[in-house]
Amino acid sequence: MAPAVSPLAPSNFPDMPEIAGVCMATGAAGIRYQGRTDVLVALLDKGTTVAGVFTRSKCPSAAVDWCRDKIKAGKARMLVVNSGNANAFTGRTGREAARYTAASASRSTKCKPGEVLLASTGVIGEPLDARAFDRVMDDLVAAAKPGNFEAAARAIMTTDTFPKGATETAKLGAATVTICGIAKGAGMIAPDMATMLSFVFTDAPIAASALQALLAKGVLDSFNAVTIDGDTSTSDTLLAFATGAAAARGAPMISRAADPRLKDFARALDTVLKSLAELVARDGEGARKLVEVIVEGAASAKSARRIAMSIANSPLVKTAIAGEDANWGRVVMAVGKAGEPADRDRLSIWFNGIRVAHKGTRDPDYDEAEVSSEMKKQVIELKVGLGIGRGRDRVLTCDLTKDYVAINGDYRS
Amino acid sequence: MAPAVSPLAPSNFPDMPEIAGVCMATGAAGIRYQGRTDVLVALLDKGTTVAGVFTRSKCPSAAVDWCRDKIKAGKARMLVVNSGNANAFTGRTGREAARYTAASASRSTKCKPGEVLLASTGVIGEPLDARAFDRVMDDLVAAAKPGNFEAAARAIMTTDTFPKGATETAKLGAATVTICGIAKGAGMIAPDMATMLSFVFTDAPIAASALQALLAKGVLDSFNAVTIDGDTSTSDTLLAFATGAAAARGAPMISRAADPRLKDFARALDTVLKSLAELVARDGEGARKLVEVIVEGAASAKSARRIAMSIANSPLVKTAIAGEDANWGRVVMAVGKAGEPADRDRLSIWFNGIRVAHKGTRDPDYDEAEVSSEMKKQVIELKVGLGIGRGRDRVLTCDLTKDYVAINGDYRS
Repeated sequence: MAPAVSPLAPSNFPDMPEIAGVCMATGAAGIRYQGRTDVLVALLDKGTTVAGVFTRSKCPSAAVDWCRDKIKAGKARMLVVNSGNANAFTGRTGREAARYTAASASRSTKCKPGEVLLASTGVIGEPLDARAFDRVMDDLVAAAKPGNFEAAARAIMTTDTFPKGATETAKLGAATVTICGIAKGAGMIAPDMATMLSFVFTDAPIAASALQALLAKGVLDSFNAVTIDGDTSTSDTLLAFATGAAAARGAPMISRAADPRLKDFARALDTVLKSLAELVARDGEGARKLVEVIVEGAASAKSARRIAMSIANSPLVKTAIAGEDANWGRVVMAVGKAGEPADRDRLSIWFNGIRVAHKGTRDPDYDEAEVSSEMKKQVIELKVGLGIGRGRDRVLTCDLTKDYVAINGDYRS
Repeated sequence: MAPAVSPLAPSNFPDMPEIAGVCMATGAAGIRYQGRTDVLVALLDKGTTVAGVFTRSKCPSAAVDWCRDKIKAGKARMLVVNSGNANAFTGRTGREAARYTAASASRSTKCKPGEVLLASTGVIGEPLDARAFDRVMDDLVAAAKPGNFEAAARAIMTTDTFPKGATETAKLGAATVTICGIAKGAGMIAPDMATMLSFVFTDAPIAASALQALLAKGVLDSFNAVTIDGDTSTSDTLLAFATGAAAARGAPMISRAADPRLKDFARALDTVLKSLAELVARDGEGARKLVEVIVEGAASAKSARRIAMSIANSPLVKTAIAGEDANWGRVVMAVGKAGEPADRDRLSIWFNGIRVAHKGTRDPDYDEAEVSSEMKKQVIELKVGLGIGRGRDRVLTCDLTKDYVAINGDYRS
């Protein structure tokens, strides 16, 4: 049986400060789960800007379609998220459910329906009864209060075994601004996007277009550099909300992503996104090991990414790591199948810093016992040197265990 | 524990006739396995032509490099195959082992080393001690006799649970010619090529270039349309040998692939390749269900192939099938992530002929009990109608079970 909580989970949820301009509440609408929260409502002060990055699936969920359309205006007053049902592949009914939810939520807060953003996660292809939200919406809006990130992170979980949050502060002009993010993931995690759902909040005053540019860049080496099983959800959504409340404390209003004053904020945002992405990998379905795949010496950075993803998505590499076997032969296989420039006779491979293969053959100094002991650790760094160029990249994944099969072979029933 | 023999195995090895001009013997060189055969030697009469298709891996095995070079001459007198060690990623030592094996084998039969073709399958990255063949080579050459395909198919097995063979006859001019093929596969099976090793023998008199053209075409809808885990071996090899012995019985010598007299032979060859490819899918590591993925109505045949492969390689689709769950939501996900033209609102999905989704939503007439009962069967036909064009394709795969993880998490130790 899969452990109740991933062995790779951090010991506790981080201390996350309130974000001025954001109030949240969670509730149980009984959409699918019994005895737990399954709805998150966030209320956002007037003037909040929004940016988003979504799944590249050609069959996105109704909520993704809704958000893609609504974020064009760059403004948000409310976020409604449910777990248990993804409202994906639900056709016209699904579109109506999204519309109904936004309209109903907007009435509770007296904003416009188009200022309500939506996200749904859970089973695909089953109709979502949006009237379930009616039973809890007014209470949630009344109960919403600042902070509350851990409860929010819990309400959006599906097969996740722990809630995921990360926070950073940054200097913006003379003021200190805060970023708080939550995420849920676990399975069906692959690039474009890597997580099913993530929401990031800040009190920095940043225009929607600048926020969008930062988010699109930040996602490349965070959520898009994580893969669990190579599958891509129809619902992947990353939204960032900037309330601008820090302007009252002297933070300058930023209208362009190229503004040099954004430098520290961009660093902090990247750190939050990377932390959340790593937490998603640490909660990969059935995961017992966190695997960092580093590719160096590739023909280009793009080539390094493709090779790293080929390794990180290889079931044979992932099962070998689950079996604590430093099977570098399978790594060579995964390099070879990527189709990118590679020269077998220049390849070197390291597990946790121990070089096991060098210049196309087994490293003569490689000590099987030493490597075996490293392979028992929870975090495995698998590094490949291609020796043909200067391209470098890094992606995160986890091992492939019997528990992954158990979780996914028995999810809907 | 994984069953000793795949539940999808045929009840028996087919009756396979002798091929005039081919003698075979198998032996135990103790390369890796104890108490079983691990070497196959085939002796081919003078005049035998050869064609081959190999892995597209950028890091091919030493044997693949050897064969790619040698088949240019189009002539073969001998085939030496070993199981237990793939002689891949073994650098200069590996190239020397290939050269040594061919030289040593050629001395036993007095042919040229370049007329000896080689294939190796098993662990990657471990040096192959080619001197192991010396102990058995002379005995094998002396013992070789016509027929013996089942023993040959057994000697090349690695994680396979049953030997794989297929045979057909065809009219060539006034004569009847015979095709016999064997294959091994099981894991690390993905397109380009789909099987690790397959060898096809015929007594038809066909020039090497014509045989090459037939083989390259035949592989597209057979071995290249099978995927087990999306991984591609460094050693995938398909060789076809034509002894020409049927010329003595009146079969015409064929020099061009476009020769209309080849029509029935091409059909028979395609049938043998497809049968072998299906047997490989039936022996997918840990497989309990054979899954035929059919995609219709795609923008093009190429697009249909890509979508079918996206479905067939999706861990979430494969684990759902292992769990006997007609989870068409995951099929939508896999269609969406393929990146090919698709319109969610035109998608239809069938499991074993029962339409579960239609025009972007759940089929109103779909009876969960009826589908559940179909999902318990050993063969699942998963059909997707895209409704946007006339492109159609079909690929074979199997489900993803805990046994796959057990087999591959514990292979080398």
